[in-house]
Amino acid sequence: MLTPQINAVEWKNGTCQLLDQTRLPQTETYLNCTRYVEVVDAIKRLAVRGAPAIGIAGAYAVVLAAKETLRTDGDLNYFSQALDSVVNARPTAVNLKWAVDRMRRHCEGAALTSGLVERLEMEAKKIHAEDIEANRRMASFGAELLERPVGALTYCNTGDLATGGIGTAFGVLRQGYLSGKITRVFPCETRPVLQGLRLTVYELQRNQIPFTVICDNMAALVMRSRQVGAVFVGSDRVAANGDAANKVGTYSLAVLAKAHQIPFYIVAPTSTFDMSLASGSQIPIEQRASEEILGLLGRGFRETPAMNPSFDVTPHELISAIVCERGIIHSPNTERVRAVLAGTCV
Amino acid sequence: MLTPQINAVEWKNGTCQLLDQTRLPQTETYLNCTRYVEVVDAIKRLAVRGAPAIGIAGAYAVVLAAKETLRTDGDLNYFSQALDSVVNARPTAVNLKWAVDRMRRHCEGAALTSGLVERLEMEAKKIHAEDIEANRRMASFGAELLERPVGALTYCNTGDLATGGIGTAFGVLRQGYLSGKITRVFPCETRPVLQGLRLTVYELQRNQIPFTVICDNMAALVMRSRQVGAVFVGSDRVAANGDAANKVGTYSLAVLAKAHQIPFYIVAPTSTFDMSLASGSQIPIEQRASEEILGLLGRGFRETPAMNPSFDVTPHELISAIVCERGIIHSPNTERVRAVLAGTCV
Repeated sequence: MLTPQINAVEWKNGTCQLLDQTRLPQTETYLNCTRYVEVVDAIKRLAVRGAPAIGIAGAYAVVLAAKETLRTDGDLNYFSQALDSVVNARPTAVNLKWAVDRMRRHCEGAALTSGLVERLEMEAKKIHAEDIEANRRMASFGAELLERPVGALTYCNTGDLATGGIGTAFGVLRQGYLSGKITRVFPCETRPVLQGLRLTVYELQRNQIPFTVICDNMAALVMRSRQVGAVFVGSDRVAANGDAANKVGTYSLAVLAKAHQIPFYIVAPTSTFDMSLASGSQIPIEQRASEEILGLLGRGFRETPAMNPSFDVTPHELISAIVCERGIIHSPNTERVRAVLAGTCV
Repeated sequence: MLTPQINAVEWKNGTCQLLDQTRLPQTETYLNCTRYVEVVDAIKRLAVRGAPAIGIAGAYAVVLAAKETLRTDGDLNYFSQALDSVVNARPTAVNLKWAVDRMRRHCEGAALTSGLVERLEMEAKKIHAEDIEANRRMASFGAELLERPVGALTYCNTGDLATGGIGTAFGVLRQGYLSGKITRVFPCETRPVLQGLRLTVYELQRNQIPFTVICDNMAALVMRSRQVGAVFVGSDRVAANGDAANKVGTYSLAVLAKAHQIPFYIVAPTSTFDMSLASGSQIPIEQRASEEILGLLGRGFRETPAMNPSFDVTPHELISAIVCERGIIHSPNTERVRAVLAGTCV
């Protein structure tokens, strides 16, 4: 019997428990992090990944860092460096910075006491709870976008493994399936780390949603044959004008969706928006080791030149709508993003 | 020191020697086929692949079948079934049927004698030699398409491993590099069988051509950044109207190239043209085992639903030109394909 929902990140008896996603789907192993560096390491090596999930894990890492600082000599330099190292664990998803900044605001002008640690723990739990609620709201808003039953294509992984709750794009797929508006999901395998094949399949199976895995290069084919009528993906950082960074290959899907006149939707909570960047060209793109690609060849081929940007940016012109927990931003641009984030109508 | 050219298929002392490409790039192992079924099996399991190469291997398989028939009781039913089984080894590349039909014409009305076997052997060698010459001519025609130095994107594998000579698209890339018109090649890894990562990289290294491997989902990114200024791919079957079947993912590249205003070229000898099919919708598409995709998960995941069409069809509207050994078919359509194949100007 499969568990319907799984916790990628959990705060348990003062430790941060992470499901080690590098070992999925073969093995469910949990990491019990008692030191912030363990969380930072888990984020770097993708044991925990997905923009909202690493935001939550980052918040718990701050709690651990505060506890460690308090246990030792209360050195605020150590604490401050710890926070920087959490923010810099991965560069593209803004959720890490967003979460740490929120935690940092509680520390301003305050002495590092057990009282502060308690307040930080409460704030991290609040960040976690808010993400669960944002997931729920996005699923509901996103499913409204579907007028008739369609097959839906998705990319990378955006469900309970990538967030605090039921997911961003995955939440919409799940809600769409439950309400009869999504007939089948086509998860792309998502090279090189295979988050689609390893993780999204794992989520689809647990939720008993019909699906067919495809290689990334087959997306155009299922669009052309109309097996797919909508694309839903997540995001790691949305700029003020609606340009959205997401797992490398997302831009390709957006171009293909447009060419096949299929709507292309981004589902991302407001914690993923970076209003300090005017456009997507300013989003830092993480370059990862080429070993992630060459690993399939086995040892001895590490010198082969390969490029491995982990993300790409989809320009807002290619995005039909962005779904966030405050509503739907149709045909996103600077004005419409600002209006929905401010809670005013457009 | 790397061998500049390698023989995927070779006729050696009455046996058909095939380089076992399933074991590349880790190991160079040769299969010495003395019975036609060994060649058929090698074709089915992709030990030899690439439309022109399997055409040549198919011709040699016919010679082996004729020898076997002669050695036993001269049963023409056995011989006829052998020829059918060569044609049906793989369904999409028309080169197999083309080669066997050419061999069959020598048998019409002739008794199965050692004299016929000799003539069949000569014909198979002629098919092989003609492919080498076609490769040379296509490389020369194709390189003329490049007006200024560019990076070139390619897909799957089209060099000496896929043909009798220097290759189809790969021959153009090599000639383009030697004449200073191609600065760098971007081979897509080509999931699920990774012909790009395993085989094209192997060819690029042996030819000392600068390259950067990319995952298939990064093609749009290198197009957008203008690192790529032209796309050259091969084909497994070109219909009378210029629609071209090739490794699954090719259609995606053609759509992306058009969206980025980058020319998209097919390089294929006339043996790959099937003038009996009015359009690409009639080309049979081989469906291969989902294990090719799911294999990355290890054992125990074989029940996961996955689709694995081995080819897709690119409509002629998306093809800037088809290069064959008789010349260049610009903006291909039925009239222009017919004219170039007939050797008349358009």
